[in-house]
Amino acid sequence: MLKINVPIIQAPMAGGITTPELVAAVSNGGGLGMVGAGYLKPEALLQEIKAIKQLTDRPFGINLFVMKKPVVDQEKIDKTISILKRYREALSLSSDITEYSYVDYFDEHVQIILDEKIPVCSFTFGIPSNGTITRLKGNNTIMIGTATNVKEALINEEGGMDALVVQGSEAGGHRGSFLREDTSGNIGLMSLIPQVTDAVQIPIIAAGGIMDGRGLKASLLLGAEAVQMGTAFLTTSESGANPLYKKAILEASDDETVLTKAFSGKYARGLQNKFIEEMKEYEGLLPDFPIVNTLTGEIRKAAAVNEMTAYMSLWSGQSPTLAKAESVASLMKRVMEHDPFN
Amino acid sequence: MLKINVPIIQAPMAGGITTPELVAAVSNGGGLGMVGAGYLKPEALLQEIKAIKQLTDRPFGINLFVMKKPVVDQEKIDKTISILKRYREALSLSSDITEYSYVDYFDEHVQIILDEKIPVCSFTFGIPSNGTITRLKGNNTIMIGTATNVKEALINEEGGMDALVVQGSEAGGHRGSFLREDTSGNIGLMSLIPQVTDAVQIPIIAAGGIMDGRGLKASLLLGAEAVQMGTAFLTTSESGANPLYKKAILEASDDETVLTKAFSGKYARGLQNKFIEEMKEYEGLLPDFPIVNTLTGEIRKAAAVNEMTAYMSLWSGQSPTLAKAESVASLMKRVMEHDPFN
Repeated sequence: MLKINVPIIQAPMAGGITTPELVAAVSNGGGLGMVGAGYLKPEALLQEIKAIKQLTDRPFGINLFVMKKPVVDQEKIDKTISILKRYREALSLSSDITEYSYVDYFDEHVQIILDEKIPVCSFTFGIPSNGTITRLKGNNTIMIGTATNVKEALINEEGGMDALVVQGSEAGGHRGSFLREDTSGNIGLMSLIPQVTDAVQIPIIAAGGIMDGRGLKASLLLGAEAVQMGTAFLTTSESGANPLYKKAILEASDDETVLTKAFSGKYARGLQNKFIEEMKEYEGLLPDFPIVNTLTGEIRKAAAVNEMTAYMSLWSGQSPTLAKAESVASLMKRVMEHDPFN
Repeated sequence: MLKINVPIIQAPMAGGITTPELVAAVSNGGGLGMVGAGYLKPEALLQEIKAIKQLTDRPFGINLFVMKKPVVDQEKIDKTISILKRYREALSLSSDITEYSYVDYFDEHVQIILDEKIPVCSFTFGIPSNGTITRLKGNNTIMIGTATNVKEALINEEGGMDALVVQGSEAGGHRGSFLREDTSGNIGLMSLIPQVTDAVQIPIIAAGGIMDGRGLKASLLLGAEAVQMGTAFLTTSESGANPLYKKAILEASDDETVLTKAFSGKYARGLQNKFIEEMKEYEGLLPDFPIVNTLTGEIRKAAAVNEMTAYMSLWSGQSPTLAKAESVASLMKRVMEHDPFN
């Protein structure tokens, strides 16, 4: 269906990680490279697509955020701006946050996918409208939904998705949950894959903590047809992740990740740091995703420039000790050749 | 090492679930039955052991709680008693809680294990003193520790444990964590098994959400040598779980479990109900484990008698939809014969 030779999909990661070099290297290796387009301006997405097409003739995909319109709660926004003041000061940013609007480029992204005849499109945070689904189907774009439990899986299947990323609680980055906002639905892959497999007919792609051949083969045994790997690709040489971010993952232990709403307003898994720790008590006060993401944007950027990992979002799955600094080709070879019984 | 024919260990479950019939049926089936002795009075444990020995000649094991002495914080206890008042009233219990002491029978339990020459002993919540370990080693008792992350695994190995239960976040019942009390260390088995496998030499037993041959084979692929299954055995005909409790699991969906401190003062995974939901806001005010367990004891018992699942502790792993009402023999046959690729 995806016209790939190896059952490995590179997870779409936002924030400049999925460089054209990364996406193309994965697709050239026989897997499926994915662009995390969620926060990208349309012109930037188009530019990225053109760059990838220069580097590979193989299929690749684009991931889009299906966002509910956030409630613009001015009181919560003002409160959050005042809470964030100390971080802005620590980073010598002007004390005023001037930008907290958010533009949803979803429709523009879809148009680009149609125009550029992108073969695969995946969705996070929900499923698109029937109109969008019909247009993409007409374009022969394979559509992949995201689910974190059986109910979400069934909604994706009924909605017409061709395949399904099943995101375990092990996964780094944002939870794809769209039915419930709490953390109670964080189901580990050992439980999630077989239960979703028994409930739906569409092919399942397992995501969360999968880093090598052991994870790949275990996922296939549990019922998945492929895996999606994020953290494993994040530390490759082709990834655009900040070197400090790569280093933090390569040095982390298994018990260092936490779920936090502090950076974006939506639960995401990353390495515990000062920002997450201190913001924990305010999680209930934050405005909706992705407004918080905009509000913390300058802080995250300045932290990266100033090499202060304490204020950076260091998304990571629960298997950081299995991450390696290597090329995409080396990672993919290692995953496919691993003999778990040897 | 464990002298078992099939790599299946029945998880020790407290509260009358691990009846002699259940433990013996698992051992007779070639696996390892386990008694959850944590809260048992010594004479009750001895009686249970004698009953099991009547039913099987095969090895079985005993699980003990390695508890830190709880701080008896009278203010927290009084506050909790007042919070619990409404549940006692709803269940027509006298409004006074008279019993909140806790006796740790650990040493008596160890003596029984030595006297009765029990071949396997597992520990939860920590590892015992060097003295206890030496005595058990002298008795040729195989000792199995419990770990929820790599650090705890290393402590178990250095402490002299012969094998290790690796408890994933999927697991029902109490978290075995002993280094940190927060929920950040809840690592899914897809991440936990390979990372612990890479860190320790002793054999690993995977626990958490494993219900059938898919989970067993995936766990072995990830690096485990055996699995420990709790919820799967809980709904068998031989288990002593309340029929309403079995029914609740058999009818639950995958997204219904939560981690709660409400029943015991320590995080445990169970089906969400009214008691857990309402007690959530008070979790920070509760005294130490196992004082809360004693304080809620009469409520849980009366709830069971009155058939009110809203106030019962319904521990369950994250795979309740894979649970079946069947015999131990049927479950074990199903797990061992399952061909995941057919």
